[in-house]
Amino acid sequence: MVLAGALVFFMQAGFALLESGLSRAKNSVNVIMKNYADLCVGSIAFCLVGYGLMFGNNPSGWLGVDHFLLSAVEDPGEYAFVFFQIMFVATAATIASGSMAERTRFGGYLFGAIGICAFIYPVFGSWVWGSYYEGSGWLGEMGFIDFAGSTVVHSVGGWCALAAIIILGPRLGRFSSGGEPRSIPGHNLNYMALGGFILWLGWFGFNAGSTLAADSSIGLIALNTHLAAASGVVSIVTVSFMFGEPVLARNVVNGGIAGLVSITAGCASMDPWFAVVTGFFGGVVMMAGDQFLEERQLDDVVGAVSVHGFAGAWGTLAAGLFLSGQLFDPQVIWVQVVGVCAAFVWTFPTALLMFFLISKTVGLRAGDIDQRRGLDYSEHFELGYPEFQQTALHGK
Amino acid sequence: MVLAGALVFFMQAGFALLESGLSRAKNSVNVIMKNYADLCVGSIAFCLVGYGLMFGNNPSGWLGVDHFLLSAVEDPGEYAFVFFQIMFVATAATIASGSMAERTRFGGYLFGAIGICAFIYPVFGSWVWGSYYEGSGWLGEMGFIDFAGSTVVHSVGGWCALAAIIILGPRLGRFSSGGEPRSIPGHNLNYMALGGFILWLGWFGFNAGSTLAADSSIGLIALNTHLAAASGVVSIVTVSFMFGEPVLARNVVNGGIAGLVSITAGCASMDPWFAVVTGFFGGVVMMAGDQFLEERQLDDVVGAVSVHGFAGAWGTLAAGLFLSGQLFDPQVIWVQVVGVCAAFVWTFPTALLMFFLISKTVGLRAGDIDQRRGLDYSEHFELGYPEFQQTALHGK
Amino acid sequence: MVLAGALVFFMQAGFALLESGLSRAKNSVNVIMKNYADLCVGSIAFCLVGYGLMFGNNPSGWLGVDHFLLSAVEDPGEYAFVFFQIMFVATAATIASGSMAERTRFGGYLFGAIGICAFIYPVFGSWVWGSYYEGSGWLGEMGFIDFAGSTVVHSVGGWCALAAIIILGPRLGRFSSGGEPRSIPGHNLNYMALGGFILWLGWFGFNAGSTLAADSSIGLIALNTHLAAASGVVSIVTVSFMFGEPVLARNVVNGGIAGLVSITAGCASMDPWFAVVTGFFGGVVMMAGDQFLEERQLDDVVGAVSVHGFAGAWGTLAAGLFLSGQLFDPQVIWVQVVGVCAAFVWTFPTALLMFFLISKTVGLRAGDIDQRRGLDYSEHFELGYPEFQQTALHGK
Repeated sequence: MVLAGALVFFMQAGFALLESGLSRAKNSVNVIMKNYADLCVGSIAFCLVGYGLMFGNNPSGWLGVDHFLLSAVEDPGEYAFVFFQIMFVATAATIASGSMAERTRFGGYLFGAIGICAFIYPVFGSWVWGSYYEGSGWLGEMGFIDFAGSTVVHSVGGWCALAAIIILGPRLGRFSSGGEPRSIPGHNLNYMALGGFILWLGWFGFNAGSTLAADSSIGLIALNTHLAAASGVVSIVTVSFMFGEPVLARNVVNGGIAGLVSITAGCASMDPWFAVVTGFFGGVVMMAGDQFLEERQLDDVVGAVSVHGFAGAWGTLAAGLFLSGQLFDPQVIWVQVVGVCAAFVWTFPTALLMFFLISKTVGLRAGDIDQRRGLDYSEHFELGYPEFQQTALHGK
Repeated sequence: MVLAGALVFFMQAGFALLESGLSRAKNSVNVIMKNYADLCVGSIAFCLVGYGLMFGNNPSGWLGVDHFLLSAVEDPGEYAFVFFQIMFVATAATIASGSMAERTRFGGYLFGAIGICAFIYPVFGSWVWGSYYEGSGWLGEMGFIDFAGSTVVHSVGGWCALAAIIILGPRLGRFSSGGEPRSIPGHNLNYMALGGFILWLGWFGFNAGSTLAADSSIGLIALNTHLAAASGVVSIVTVSFMFGEPVLARNVVNGGIAGLVSITAGCASMDPWFAVVTGFFGGVVMMAGDQFLEERQLDDVVGAVSVHGFAGAWGTLAAGLFLSGQLFDPQVIWVQVVGVCAAFVWTFPTALLMFFLISKTVGLRAGDIDQRRGLDYSEHFELGYPEFQQTALHGK
Repeated sequence: MVLAGALVFFMQAGFALLESGLSRAKNSVNVIMKNYADLCVGSIAFCLVGYGLMFGNNPSGWLGVDHFLLSAVEDPGEYAFVFFQIMFVATAATIASGSMAERTRFGGYLFGAIGICAFIYPVFGSWVWGSYYEGSGWLGEMGFIDFAGSTVVHSVGGWCALAAIIILGPRLGRFSSGGEPRSIPGHNLNYMALGGFILWLGWFGFNAGSTLAADSSIGLIALNTHLAAASGVVSIVTVSFMFGEPVLARNVVNGGIAGLVSITAGCASMDPWFAVVTGFFGGVVMMAGDQFLEERQLDDVVGAVSVHGFAGAWGTLAAGLFLSGQLFDPQVIWVQVVGVCAAFVWTFPTALLMFFLISKTVGLRAGDIDQRRGLDYSEHFELGYPEFQQTALHGK
């Protein structure tokens, strides 16, 4: 579990590279700083408050009520569990970072990350994964299947990201005054691709580590995880060809991640070829989601809402549809629908309110001139590539 | 085994970075796309066809005949085995990618990758590693030693690469009209070096994971793997000094990989100081191989033929020469020679035919103008570094 | 242990990226070459000489006297131990590399790395970790607590780095003729950040692997490791705010590493909230150390002396202060002080003498014109980014 947790930790590097690569060079230091800071502040906030809310004794099924501040840990094995769960909450928090890139003030972002780690994520988590001790959550009691967190981690992160980009508004220049979308290419597709590979690697820890035991199911989990990712990429290539559009590197990488997100719920409980189907439609959902958001002038720099929110919801449904031994059982599917809806109904309004309050107090959106200069300069007083950016600036 | 497989998966990122770093910036998106696509398409093709050919019941010793489409998997432990084997075939397939960089059309490349994963690699693999079930391959029956695949994975990949670059021809400008070689430097040696470190890391999974059991031999395997790699680097430094040539970063990184390739066959069955000797001559073989190819005007962008093909053949012989307890036993060596030759005799002509057919149908070589503009533009409609490349282009 | 060792191996990539990112582009190939070369030459030197000095039979408690050349290994489990220890010595050696960047000749550097791996590090190590066989070191006998090497690995590496930068002198232009410090920004903060993430990942192998057994303590170790790192980052943010200074990315990344260094001694023997305190003051010590060195015109490119030397010493004290069940026991603290001082008294003068001798024989400092042109050109005849650097040079 510790090695799996270490791989999940490494996903932070993957998220940072993906976001940095898809942002412009003038915001690359900001990306680094956000990813380091949310990991660190979020880890500590989760230990102080979130862990108790999520995994403390849970008499009502709606909230843990003790074990705050890591108090009352009796079993030394629980530390490994805390460690692994920290990596999960850090993943959920960092999902919003990518959507909000290139226009968010650093301080406001950090308050948002703390809110997700200490409150929004743990509350919903307690409904599903219940307690390390006694009493479990109401969704878990209903039989909701979410093995490693398509909904608990990824959709929750995705809905937070959706709330954030609604409050923030799009980047300067992302849409014309007439509402036409304009592409803003990222500065380094190699970083993006490396980030995608690192996420894929980390996912083996994410899914396989969630067995909490090295038994024989771990082979099925790893195989399903890999095949769904591969299938997500194939899906992008297929869909792009069908619509006569170029196969963009961003979509290929995101397609793989959408496949991974969508298999996260059902990786332990479906046969491999259903994992291929799940991953394939994960890619389709992601492409459609990007289209849907762009039409509404919602600016999601890395596509996290589609990849984590929409594909996570799809994957949770797929875990019900393709449940091994109970294929297409309406009762199972119904519980999955309830869980998906509960995640949205809890997360989206809460996150919307939180980011609204942040924007009215500490401030969330960087000013126009700061966006033009780049957040590296305006927020952090540094440049990511001092030798090359000066040349580039002079050249333009 | 799952964690080892995850490390082997990560080698895909290593190969991508190594190839990207040694290519020009205008082809870096193409490198990414090839590496993602061959992994994904190849994984699925292997599950559909290749796994059955390689590990299905093998009555003749020359080919598996069932278990296609992952059918008839009864033992849940087999899924972990399938997962691990997918990562091996993906490694074999991606070896050719690096040799073919900067001049290969994307579609043609993909057909080649499918052919390697579904057919060329599994057929030879079935001769050596036999079946998960009953009956094993004829080379395995003879006592051929190839613990983790110096020949099965690396030489096979290397001979496919050799066939591909013969059919493709060199990059525009790589040789003068008089046949003089001209160096085309890669655009980012940091990527190359990071890629090399990632490959080295992945190799611990590659070799140590091949024990299929966490017993005490794993320490010897890991130590031999590391010492051979270190010795490969020392070899490059020594040889370069002896010939009065500068120690180039590309050769240092490739020397380490050549050491890794050459210890892959014998890492579980030789003493550590023989691993040092094996790695050292792996580096020498790699340097001599590069020279040999360049003199024949064969253009191998990353040096994969030398690193994987030639050093893999050497390593397979070394596994026989230095077999613990049976040093320099002619009978053992003879079997190794047979295996090395069988790999070449099967792989090279088959791959040559395959790439020839691809070049005459779908097309394999990018046109001159497309090579000049870069494959990123002509094949993928994107730039890897939009902010910096425009400046660079204007500067020139 | 092998998987943990593989993660520690990967720290080499982290150190290389961190150093490369904080150096100028014209020295980035030199960084790669140093990091590959010290790993390889150091690994072999350790196997030849160092391992015997450190882990051979140790009748006096001051030095191992046999098991050189990996001779007399009877237990196959020992190979895994050797493998793991090689990764530790490689870490110690590479620490100095970062401090010495941008002005050190390649050959002289290599002699220094060999001296650290074959002699300086193993001798001190034998005092603490004693023997794999019989007899253990005098500091270990006293009850000195250094679980995974805050002192044995990191302080020793840090004091070697301190000696090296004293002998070397600062980079050209780092201090004005009046002694005023002038900032020389690194060329790629993304590399630096990725390097930091990789080091953090590797540390889970470094600390958790040091249990030499997968028991329940591993969860506490991993959790403490992570929380100390997070706390080190929070410390930098807090201290920077308090002094009204910008929060620099370099300090954030180094703060995380300082937290990791400082928890390395006590990660298995203190409660999690003390790990948070340890990491926090690790960050403070690092910031103060950087200030201290700069005032003395000592030029440490990556800050390794502060991060590994000073924070390592602090962490070793903290392991005594916060020892679970014996908080603030003066006897325990006294032994820790002795160990910290012994490390300095052994390492610093020995390293100073070694680098002095190197500088007077093979040569250590690159000439002014070579520094101006960059070591890539003057030492390695290559450029790291040939397409972009030419443009950049012409642009200036």
